[in-house]
Formats: sequence, structure tokens, C-alpha cells
Amino acid sequence: MDYGVAIDTMWVLVATALVFFMQAGFAMVETGFTRAKNAGNIIMKNMMDFAVGSVIYFVFGFSIMFGDSIGGLFGEIHLFSNDLYEHLGLTIPQHAFMIFQTVFAATAATIVSGAMAERTKFASYLVFSFVITLVIYPVVGHWVWGGGWLSELGFHDFAGSTVVHSVGGWAALMGAFILGPRIGKYNQDGSSNKLNGHSLTLGALGVFILWFGWFGFNPGSTLSGQDVEAIALIFMTTNLAAAAGAISAMFITWVKDGKPDVGMTLNGALGGLVAITAGTDAVSTVGALGIGLIAGIVIVYGSELVERTLHVDDPVGAVAVHGLCGATGTLLVGVFATEGGLLASGSFALLGVQALGVVAVAGWTLSTSFILFKTIDIVLGLRVSKEEELTGLDLLEHGLESSYPDFEYKKDIVTE
Amino acid sequence: MDYGVAIDTMWVLVATALVFFMQAGFAMVETGFTRAKNAGNIIMKNMMDFAVGSVIYFVFGFSIMFGDSIGGLFGEIHLFSNDLYEHLGLTIPQHAFMIFQTVFAATAATIVSGAMAERTKFASYLVFSFVITLVIYPVVGHWVWGGGWLSELGFHDFAGSTVVHSVGGWAALMGAFILGPRIGKYNQDGSSNKLNGHSLTLGALGVFILWFGWFGFNPGSTLSGQDVEAIALIFMTTNLAAAAGAISAMFITWVKDGKPDVGMTLNGALGGLVAITAGTDAVSTVGALGIGLIAGIVIVYGSELVERTLHVDDPVGAVAVHGLCGATGTLLVGVFATEGGLLASGSFALLGVQALGVVAVAGWTLSTSFILFKTIDIVLGLRVSKEEELTGLDLLEHGLESSYPDFEYKKDIVTE
Amino acid sequence: MDYGVAIDTMWVLVATALVFFMQAGFAMVETGFTRAKNAGNIIMKNMMDFAVGSVIYFVFGFSIMFGDSIGGLFGEIHLFSNDLYEHLGLTIPQHAFMIFQTVFAATAATIVSGAMAERTKFASYLVFSFVITLVIYPVVGHWVWGGGWLSELGFHDFAGSTVVHSVGGWAALMGAFILGPRIGKYNQDGSSNKLNGHSLTLGALGVFILWFGWFGFNPGSTLSGQDVEAIALIFMTTNLAAAAGAISAMFITWVKDGKPDVGMTLNGALGGLVAITAGTDAVSTVGALGIGLIAGIVIVYGSELVERTLHVDDPVGAVAVHGLCGATGTLLVGVFATEGGLLASGSFALLGVQALGVVAVAGWTLSTSFILFKTIDIVLGLRVSKEEELTGLDLLEHGLESSYPDFEYKKDIVTE
Repeated sequence: MDYGVAIDTMWVLVATALVFFMQAGFAMVETGFTRAKNAGNIIMKNMMDFAVGSVIYFVFGFSIMFGDSIGGLFGEIHLFSNDLYEHLGLTIPQHAFMIFQTVFAATAATIVSGAMAERTKFASYLVFSFVITLVIYPVVGHWVWGGGWLSELGFHDFAGSTVVHSVGGWAALMGAFILGPRIGKYNQDGSSNKLNGHSLTLGALGVFILWFGWFGFNPGSTLSGQDVEAIALIFMTTNLAAAAGAISAMFITWVKDGKPDVGMTLNGALGGLVAITAGTDAVSTVGALGIGLIAGIVIVYGSELVERTLHVDDPVGAVAVHGLCGATGTLLVGVFATEGGLLASGSFALLGVQALGVVAVAGWTLSTSFILFKTIDIVLGLRVSKEEELTGLDLLEHGLESSYPDFEYKKDIVTE
Repeated sequence: MDYGVAIDTMWVLVATALVFFMQAGFAMVETGFTRAKNAGNIIMKNMMDFAVGSVIYFVFGFSIMFGDSIGGLFGEIHLFSNDLYEHLGLTIPQHAFMIFQTVFAATAATIVSGAMAERTKFASYLVFSFVITLVIYPVVGHWVWGGGWLSELGFHDFAGSTVVHSVGGWAALMGAFILGPRIGKYNQDGSSNKLNGHSLTLGALGVFILWFGWFGFNPGSTLSGQDVEAIALIFMTTNLAAAAGAISAMFITWVKDGKPDVGMTLNGALGGLVAITAGTDAVSTVGALGIGLIAGIVIVYGSELVERTLHVDDPVGAVAVHGLCGATGTLLVGVFATEGGLLASGSFALLGVQALGVVAVAGWTLSTSFILFKTIDIVLGLRVSKEEELTGLDLLEHGLESSYPDFEYKKDIVTE
Repeated sequence: MDYGVAIDTMWVLVATALVFFMQAGFAMVETGFTRAKNAGNIIMKNMMDFAVGSVIYFVFGFSIMFGDSIGGLFGEIHLFSNDLYEHLGLTIPQHAFMIFQTVFAATAATIVSGAMAERTKFASYLVFSFVITLVIYPVVGHWVWGGGWLSELGFHDFAGSTVVHSVGGWAALMGAFILGPRIGKYNQDGSSNKLNGHSLTLGALGVFILWFGWFGFNPGSTLSGQDVEAIALIFMTTNLAAAAGAISAMFITWVKDGKPDVGMTLNGALGGLVAITAGTDAVSTVGALGIGLIAGIVIVYGSELVERTLHVDDPVGAVAVHGLCGATGTLLVGVFATEGGLLASGSFALLGVQALGVVAVAGWTLSTSFILFKTIDIVLGLRVSKEEELTGLDLLEHGLESSYPDFEYKKDIVTE
């Protein structure tokens, strides 16, 4: 028996379970931070983007991401992943690698539902989930992890700040932009209102679950439990960046608004996690603190940028958390990496490659998701009717009288 | 040091922790899908069937399941599991095997509380938990996993579609049948009303937790982390079946009722998980998709069968999820198994043995639980008074004014 | 490749993730068992004691705990843990050990927020978190696990009944004592009122999460996955003690008050877990049952002692769970240990050392936290204003209108 293979396989599979559990985290964050009248709909979107994504990625996406490279752009398609993938040089069983990649693919898809919450047709969202897992995500994945052109340039995105999170974040931005804001979000003068989520405690639980799941997301990406120094460092940098993100977001809101804001602090932790993901293996513990602190700043000001400058209504802050912090974290590898980073080496070479990767992935994702959402909008319609939005999506999309039938909802001022 | 033993032991113990966590999943599913006035009572039942079950299984149940076989029917009893069990040929420490089996036993017990929710006396439920873990479950376990008569026939139930889930499901059916429906569930003309659960979000969280825990339930049952191809395949088949179950249940309700139903979709995922459990190691990934799709169908039409044809009131759908999908999944091993299955081999032999096992376990569980519930009913009374049921079990069983004292419950139309 | 190192490192890191997740458990227990108007504040305290604690422990605390011993009292400080720590003789990477210790340190800190809930200023609580992780906890940790004077005497606290839980519990006692009770808790005649928590289901979910996390907390403390007999035994003893704690607390309240109390039963499980933590590796499975049963008794009568005799208002029972059961469990090692325990050896030697450790740690923690809380009280003020307490801390500490804005809170009789 080769113990090394067993050790590596166990490591990847335990990590897979943890990354799967992030789906529960996303579901709780997105439901908790939106209104009760849409809770059932958001749960459905979170459940079904994972279910549909799991199947589509198995049938098509995996081979597009990891098949033999066609010009560095995408992989050769094999239906049902039915190929040997010997060129990957895996030491672990192919199915172990495949399930690990499946839960990653589903993470990218699920990010989007939060930004588009409370106004997107369920059927249209399903179609979107289908396509992002079929092609948008796998192509980026091929570029960076499947032997494609970005990997050849030396682009470093260890566990997916760009590949997973920014793909989700940019698609979220485009979706929320095309949808337009929720009724009641903006006033005539362009100022915005808070449409508070219905359960801060469920939202916070979601953040804790995501943090927990990240201990699979980042260290699992070594694909090896034998790489002991790396996985131990990754645990440290992941945790420190999350902590620093929460701390810096909290203090900024405290200074700026006079009180430490709960929602921003929670998103600060998530922003730190997203940002460290690219360089979690490549920076020092002190570097991780730096990345987390910067992510906290990006969360606070990035959320304002999205809401007030771009006038994009993102109910849960997914664009700032996954898009902006994903991009920031990827760039900061070029600054903080202990090998090749600007601070250690004085060279801008890595930083340049990182910037190129960030821009290329943003360009691809924004343009393909623009086409996708526009097409869906024309064919199926992307947004529910005004009546449905006011009533809540639970009733008209799912025939669900209420997600909390034993409790009376407060009269929603927005519906008046 | 034998690294193999360490690898296997770690694998089983990590799986144990995940399977334990399924208790939280059951608690959330069962509480979320029932009414607020009974929330504390359901929590107590879920906590205590695990606590009582853990102790009883240690003191009696384990040896009945795994002691030296007495005629292939049950094992030799050793109080406090106090024996060497060398005939099991374990490579891992006995305590590791024992704790893994403990969390499995508790899963069978906890399934029942959902079907009997909102009207069962707490003390009577405790007695039931005691007996199912003492004898009903261990005997079935002995037949299949303890070297008993079904295992000798070649019955294949890898991780317990029949041993764990259908035992829970059939006992749930008998319990709900003997109890009778909740007040207000059925109308004079035999038609039924929806008595919606009080928190869809907690229910959905429970489903995500159960799916997560299943990544311990199924792959842990190899009892070996060295069996890398098997555990990797099991992860894939488990996940695909769950995804396919959710998808098929969703589309059926969509076509049938015009809208995708949230509750059925969630139960579809669970049904897929239950169904794949028997053959998770023995079918291909495509076979797993097939099993999941069928499970989704069974969930939708099986739930209707239970509610409308049998007139059994099962608040959370436990009979369809665990009983019907457990049986279906066990039978489908005989169809989809890559070795010996009908499709691969053209032989009905395995399918026949699977059918025999399903019927035998159903017969044993239905008859013993009939005797048990009837006895409890006569001695202690199984059902709470009408007044208590209307007021809610929290107050009269536990002296709990409210599980949500800061919120007003809506006037329950059923109580009028 | 040394497979043993990989096995041990994976074990410790998986355990680290589970122990981290206990933060979610604490957050849910503490939020669920307090009132809705303070939910956001409690979430923030739980998130930030972990975030601040993670950073402070990395920058200072770890070296105070594990640096070269200065007189057996504390370790040599190295900023950013920047030292080799070769004297620890670790086989796993230093970062793996460090992150495992970080999540332990944060557990001690987070225990306190529950006892001080619903009336403590957020800024003051942050300062407290800072100091307990900086010095109070690491000094105790040094005494017992860092080669300090208690370890030299043979004090046995395997996973931290005393080091982690009683430190949190005694600091919680002192904090709640200095703060004084919540408005409305006690009547003129000294009798007390129940101020029920706002979500029993979230509280119960927290208990399940904590139990789950304990399967990392206790067996991870072997620091080795190769120690297979030990980790398997630890799983068994941990689970049996928790189960027995729930059972005994339930039956006591049943006999005493006529009904099985939900909150006490949940705390009984936690008490069993805290109590077994010290001796989880050193007692038999039957001994674990005994320790759990005793812990259940301590929970019921200890909670009454704190509330009725000491007149300390501890909203979630943290003093009884972590302080009293932590001390009890540590003492019971001296009784039940299969090597050196009173029952096995007839000798009081170990029991004496255990008692000395319990008293020393209680003395240190109570006195330092007294000084700390008094200082904070003078400099910053420890307690919010009467108006703020009545309104709820969410609004005035965090500008949060409501953690559940879609639902109306019931008029709180306490605010009148």
C-alpha cells in the first residue's frame, strides 16, 4: 500500500466535505441578509445552483477545465468526464480530484445568487447557473489551473481568489447591474436606503460556516496532506487574514460612523478570507495580516463604491467581498509573496502577471455574463414583475405562503 | 508504527464526527418543518434520542449487533460491550469501530421523531428510543453487518439504506400510523391540509448539514482510508445522487403543480442521499445519477401515497425519505451495481436478494415497532391530550412558555 | 517522506477546523439564549473575541504560553511567535501547533461573553478579550501545557477542563459579578425571574455544533493521529460523558420540577463535555459515564447556586458549564483515572495535585480578571447605561435597528 496516496486522498476528501459545507454558509448569509418574504426563494437558488452545478460540471465542465488544452484556452470536452486525464499527473484518484473541483465550481456559481437576490426569476437563475458551470467558470479554471495560458505565464492563484471568487463576483456585478436595483433601494435624488436582512443571526452563522469551510478550501488546494509545512502555514495565513479583515472593517466603520457596524465586520472577515486565498501558501503570517487589513478597507469602501457610485444594488455585498477582495488579494500576491513579491524581491514582474490575470478574468467574466444575462433577459425575462417583487418571491415563484408561517411579517414600508 | 492503522482510524473517526453532526441536521429539519409551539419539544427529542441511544448502544446494543452470531439472528450480549470481538477482524481499534457504529445507531433512532412530531408524549418517545437502540436496530444490523443471515446471502447494503434508514423509516411509519394524524391535518372528506413548518430556513440548514454529514456516513463505511479508489468514488456517487434527487423532485413538482416546490426539492436531495447509501460503492457515477433521479420521483409520489392513500400524517416526510427511498435504493443496487447488477450482468440474482432483505427488514421493523408502540400506548399513553396538542407541547411537556419568547406567534387556525 | 508527520499534522489541522467551528456554536448558544434586542451585539462579541484573540495570541500570547519557561511561571516573549520553540519537541510543523493553540485560546475568551451578555459595553468587552488572550490564559497554559510548575507536579488536564474552560468560566463569573445582574433579573425580595432567550432552536443548534467541535477539541489534543488507541478511546469517552450529562440533568429537573427542562438538558450535555475534557484520555468508558452523570448534577445545582446563592446573573449558564464542570471534571480525573486515580489506586496523590491545580487556576483567573474588569470599569465603564440596556444593545452600540427587522418584537415587560 502506498500510504502517501492514502494520506493525500483523505486530505482532499476531508477538504471537499468542508468546501461543500460552504454552501450552507452561503445559503445562511444570503437568506439572513435579505428579507423574509424571499427566504424560500433564496434557499432554492442556493440548493439548486449546487445541484445543477454538480451535475453539469460532471457532464461537461470538468473536461472543459481539465481536458487536454486546446491552445491554452480550454480543454477537450469529454462527456461525463469520461477520460483518463493522465496529463494532470495526479497522485490521488481521479474521482477525488473531480469531486474537489466540483465543490469549487459550485462555489463560484453560488456567489451570484446573493447579489441578484429578491428580484430574479427562479427559472432564469437556473439557466444562469447552468451556463456558468458549463463554460464561464471552467474556461477561467483552464487558464489558471488546467495548464492554460495564465498558468504558463506564472500567474499565482493558489486556491482561487480570482478563479473562483472573482468569477463569482464579476458575474454577480453584471447580474445585479442588468437587473437594476430592488424597488425602494434608491430615492429620486440617487441616495440609497438600507433594506435590512431579516435575520442577522442566520447571516452571522453563515459567516462562521464559511470561515470553517475555508479550512478546506485553502489547505485542500495543496492536493496533498504530505505537504505538511505548506498546509500548516495555510491554516495560519487563512485564519489571520480573516481575523485582520474583520478587525479593520470594524474599526473603519467605528471611526467613520461612530459605531462598529455588524454587517460590515462580518463581510470584513469574508473579504479577508477571499483575499488571502490566492497567496495563502506564498505569503508569511505577517503578510497575511497585511492582506487581511487591506481587505477590510476594500470591503468598507468597495461596498460604498458599488452602492453609491456604481448605483448597483447588491443586497449581500457579494461584489465587494468576492469581486473586489478577490482582485485585491490576487494583486497582493505580487506584493507580499515571499518569493518573487515586490517587497521581498523588489521586482514588479509577478505583480504585473497578477494584474494581467485579474484583468483578463474580469474581462472574460463580465463580457460572457453580460451576453448571458442579456440573452436570458430577452428569452425568459430576468426580473420578476413589480407585483411579485413587492409580495415576495416565495409566494409567486414557489407557491409558498410564508417561510415563517407562525410569525407575522412586519408591514414592509417598501411595499406601500 | 503501522501507518495503515493510523490512516484507517483517522478516516473512521473523522467520519464519525461528520455522522454525529447529522444529529444537528435532523434537529433542524424536524424543528424547521414543524410548528413553533412544539420547537422545544422536538429539540429535546432529537437531543435525547441521541444521548439515550449512545448509552444504550454502548451498554447493550453493540454486542447484540456485533457479538458472536447466534444462529445468524443476533449477537451474544456483553454488557458495556465488554468483549474482544476478534471475530470481526478489525484493523482499527475496537473503540473506533464502536463509536462509528454508535452514531449510526443513533441515526436510525432519530429519524422517527420527525414523523411522530407535534403529538407524541416525551416520556413515551424516550422509551421508544431506548428500545429501538436496544434491540430493533441492532438485530437488523446483525443480519446485514454483523455476520448474520442476510450478509451470508450476499445482501448488499453498504452504508445503510436499509439497515439505518429504512429501519428508521418503517418505525416512523408505524409510529405515525398508530398515533393518528395531528388535529386539523385531515378534513371530514378525507382531504388533507398543509400544516406548514415554522422555519423554512432552519429546515433547509438541516438539509445542508445532513448532506455534509453524508460525506462521513457513506465513505466512512469503508472503515479504511487506504481504500482510496473506493472512497473517492463514494464521494462522487453520494454527491451526484443527492443533486439528481433534488433536481428530479423539483422538476416533477414544477410540471405537476406549476411551481417548483421548496420542501419537496429539499426532501428530494435527502431522498437521493438515502437511496445511494446502499450502493454508493457499487454503482458508477452515471448509475448514481439514475438512482438519484428515481429517488426524486419516489419522494414526490411517495409523500402523496403516505399522506393521501395511507392517510398517515408524517410532518416532515420521514417515511418517504428514509423508508421508501431506503427500500428503493437498496433494490436499485440489484439493478445498477457494476458487478452483479441487472443492467451489467443480466442476472436477477442480486436483485432478488436485495428484495428479500428489504422485505425482511420491513417486516421485522414494522412488526416489532407495532408491538412496541402498542405496548407503550397501553402502559404510558403514546399521544398527548387534545388540549396539549393545541397549546403546543413546549408548555405542557417542558414548562417552556415559548421557544421564541420575544416574538408573538400567529393565531393558529388549527387551534380554533 | 515521513508518513507519521503527515498523519499527525492532518490530525491536528482537522481538529483545528472543528475547534474553530465551536465559535459558531458559542455564538448560537449565546445569541439563542439571550434576547432578540441584543442579538447583533452578541454576534459581534463572539466574532471579535475570536478575531482579536487570533491576532493577539499570534503576536504575544503564544510565546508567553510556550516560550522558554521563566521560573515555571510564564514563557519568554517573542513578538509574532518568532522563535523556533525547539524545546517543545514537536514532530508536527510549528505552524500546525500554533493554529491549534490559537483556536484553544479563543475558546477560553469567548466563554466569557455569554455570562456578561446583554449589559456589557462593546469596547470594554474588546479590551477584556485582548487581555485574556494576551496574558490571563497564556500564563495558565504555560503552567499546565508549557512546561510550567503545574505540569511538573503531574497535574493532568488533557484537553483543558481547567486550562481552557475553567479559565473562561472563572473570568465569566468575575465579569458577571462586577457587572451586576440585568435589569429585571432579581426582585426586591431577592428572588429571580427568568429572562428567556429569544431562540431556543438557535441555542440548541449551538449545543450540537459544540458537541461536534469537541470531537476536535479532545482527540486533537493528542497532537498525533498515530496514537490510535488513545484517539479512539477519547471519542468514546467524550461522547458518553456528553450523553450522560444530558441524561442526568434531564432526569434531575424532571424529578425536581415535574417536567424535563430543555435548557438544563442542553447545558447538561455541555457540562458533560467540559467535565470529560481533562481526563478524556485517562478514564475508562464507564468512568466517562460516571463523570458525565456527575456533571449533569453540577449543572442543575450549580446553576441554582450561581443564580440564587451568589446572586450572579449569568444569562447562558457559562459559570456552571465551564467553571464548575471544568473544576469538577479536573478533580474527577483524580478519582476515575485508570492509572493513579483514587478508585484504581487507592491513592489520594493525584486527586491532591488536581485540587491544587484547580484552586491555583481559579485564584489566578479570579484575581487577574477582578483587576482587569475593575480597571476597565474605571477607565472605560464596563456596563451600558440603563436606557441602552432597556432599548437593547443592538441599536446604541451598533446602530442596528433590529436583528430581525421583518418581525415585531414582543413588548418586553422588563422595559416597563
